[in-house]
Amino acid sequence: MPPAPDDRRFTDDDMQSALRNRELPLEALRYDVTPTGLHYLLGHFDIPAVNQDSWSLEIGGLVARPGSFTLDDLRQMPSSSMAVTLECAGNGRSLLDPFPGGQPWRSGAVSTAVWNGVSLAHLLQAVEVSSEAVEIVFTGADRGVEDGVEQRFQRSLPTREAAQADVLIAYEMNGESLPPQHGSPARLIVPGWYGMASVKWLVEIDAVSTPFDGFQQWSYEIRQDENVSGERITRMLPRALMEPPGIPGDAGRRVRGADVALRGRAWSGTSGIVRVEVSMDDGETWFDAAVGQPVGPKAWSGWHGAVELPRPGDYVLRSRATDADGRTQPTEPRRNVWGYQNNVCERVPVVFAPE
Amino acid sequence: MPPAPDDRRFTDDDMQSALRNRELPLEALRYDVTPTGLHYLLGHFDIPAVNQDSWSLEIGGLVARPGSFTLDDLRQMPSSSMAVTLECAGNGRSLLDPFPGGQPWRSGAVSTAVWNGVSLAHLLQAVEVSSEAVEIVFTGADRGVEDGVEQRFQRSLPTREAAQADVLIAYEMNGESLPPQHGSPARLIVPGWYGMASVKWLVEIDAVSTPFDGFQQWSYEIRQDENVSGERITRMLPRALMEPPGIPGDAGRRVRGADVALRGRAWSGTSGIVRVEVSMDDGETWFDAAVGQPVGPKAWSGWHGAVELPRPGDYVLRSRATDADGRTQPTEPRRNVWGYQNNVCERVPVVFAPE
Repeated sequence: MPPAPDDRRFTDDDMQSALRNRELPLEALRYDVTPTGLHYLLGHFDIPAVNQDSWSLEIGGLVARPGSFTLDDLRQMPSSSMAVTLECAGNGRSLLDPFPGGQPWRSGAVSTAVWNGVSLAHLLQAVEVSSEAVEIVFTGADRGVEDGVEQRFQRSLPTREAAQADVLIAYEMNGESLPPQHGSPARLIVPGWYGMASVKWLVEIDAVSTPFDGFQQWSYEIRQDENVSGERITRMLPRALMEPPGIPGDAGRRVRGADVALRGRAWSGTSGIVRVEVSMDDGETWFDAAVGQPVGPKAWSGWHGAVELPRPGDYVLRSRATDADGRTQPTEPRRNVWGYQNNVCERVPVVFAPE
Repeated sequence: MPPAPDDRRFTDDDMQSALRNRELPLEALRYDVTPTGLHYLLGHFDIPAVNQDSWSLEIGGLVARPGSFTLDDLRQMPSSSMAVTLECAGNGRSLLDPFPGGQPWRSGAVSTAVWNGVSLAHLLQAVEVSSEAVEIVFTGADRGVEDGVEQRFQRSLPTREAAQADVLIAYEMNGESLPPQHGSPARLIVPGWYGMASVKWLVEIDAVSTPFDGFQQWSYEIRQDENVSGERITRMLPRALMEPPGIPGDAGRRVRGADVALRGRAWSGTSGIVRVEVSMDDGETWFDAAVGQPVGPKAWSGWHGAVELPRPGDYVLRSRATDADGRTQPTEPRRNVWGYQNNVCERVPVVFAPE
């Protein structure tokens, strides 16, 4: 039976975007560290063809000693490794109705990988950033036209953020050289921030005296009116997700027993996760789940719990995270023009059908 | 500007399917062998959690010596490696209007990997398949409900096809253990056939005396009427695809110069590619491109050509492959109920905009 016309919410452009980019399949929440080929992926433009043998990273602007660094140069510097949970700022966007446009994520634009590379602070010290610099601008090798503007992908960080010890120029992911789609040969990793800050295919770093206002800077804003500037997006709001219980089915997940064990992950960009709750009645009532240790200081925490379904039938399971700053996920979506930061509690329809 | 209601062709279910599965981003046609995390991916159900240490492959049915094989057992047998181009039978489906439902592929559900493993023929000889067996049934560990039918993923091959020397039980992809999403720890690879034949997460092989008629067998049929059985899908039809020229843009790819170099890949499941043509006027006229050697006997061939755009403006580029069996891609889509095998020539809109 074809869907009712009203159920059709997405265009060919939306579909092309969805097929180029990719979510974490939620059963892969089972892995502490997401296997490389399962990590979520968002690119604004094509994956560029970068030759890592001739690649170099140019560092300039307001610095005492502008420099050019090859991959070998980076590999010879002290390195550090860190498990980092990255999430797209648009995660949850297609749960909004009407759909605001843009990459039509459901809830799976999040993953955790172990990144290895050089501390950005170390590099910035090496080139001696001037005290007049207020921001550091990062430029990727990827190029395209977005909303009529031809551009390379560029983002900035305030100098105090760029100087944080955990900001990395990463050249390895999960123990191997970066794959093409994750920014080969080197990329920025900004723990705690939404993914747009972690510029891929990095080719240039510039210290600047005035705040950068490029396309990718103002297009990541929380706007209530399309034409009125809003708050710039920085760190991840709290969110919990569960490994979907049972097996996939036409009308929702099918579970066979009344006792349903639940487990999943939860994270926040500003502090640790202190509480995860689960619901089996679409958020009417909530039960506490147990929160485990995070996979790393900048990575998600595991959690586990259980619900007992009183009788066969349809249920909507939900999970909800609270972080140490007291921020809790909303049970209804919050809307803004471009559909960012929709961290509404997930809804997982299940059918309890005993054999 | 929101899209006109008529441009909205896809539902939330379509979108969920698109975000779980994934195409090859077409710029990745540049690689002879697709990097692992960029290989297209289609799963009917969840990626199962298979413990490779306790995993075994059970071979039974009409065989003289039923057996159970661990991963170590397979690794100790003679192995062979092969570059294989796999394509989903539904590739091109969402180019159909109205959209017939199912995974909403555009054209990128194709990739090439190097698979390493044991010849299936070798295993079948070891267990001595009876001469009464007409088919071999392959069962995966993935499970779910599809169109109301609870099932494990199962497909069969006629015994003569299963005995082909190039059918593999693969346990490595591109030189490493299979990643979870590609069938870890072992899967079938059936070169030349559409991807549904290459059963992932293989746990059971059975020789049977009557043709297998499971869900995944009859659901891969070319039907002109939903209720009337049609031809079963086997080998890939010819198709060519180009690396999209220029840079991505809102209204199509943007190219700066009149001379546009084109290159891409072409393949067929029954024979080699003997001709690739390109068009810059949406298929009115065609020019021959040069076809290179295939990456392997069962893998795609590279091709290259060029067009000279006469003046700035909008163009639609196309490519078209012909195989050694004389089969050529159609310029208009061919429709069937479930939208399989739509190998219509690709259409790549470009805007020639000199600086």
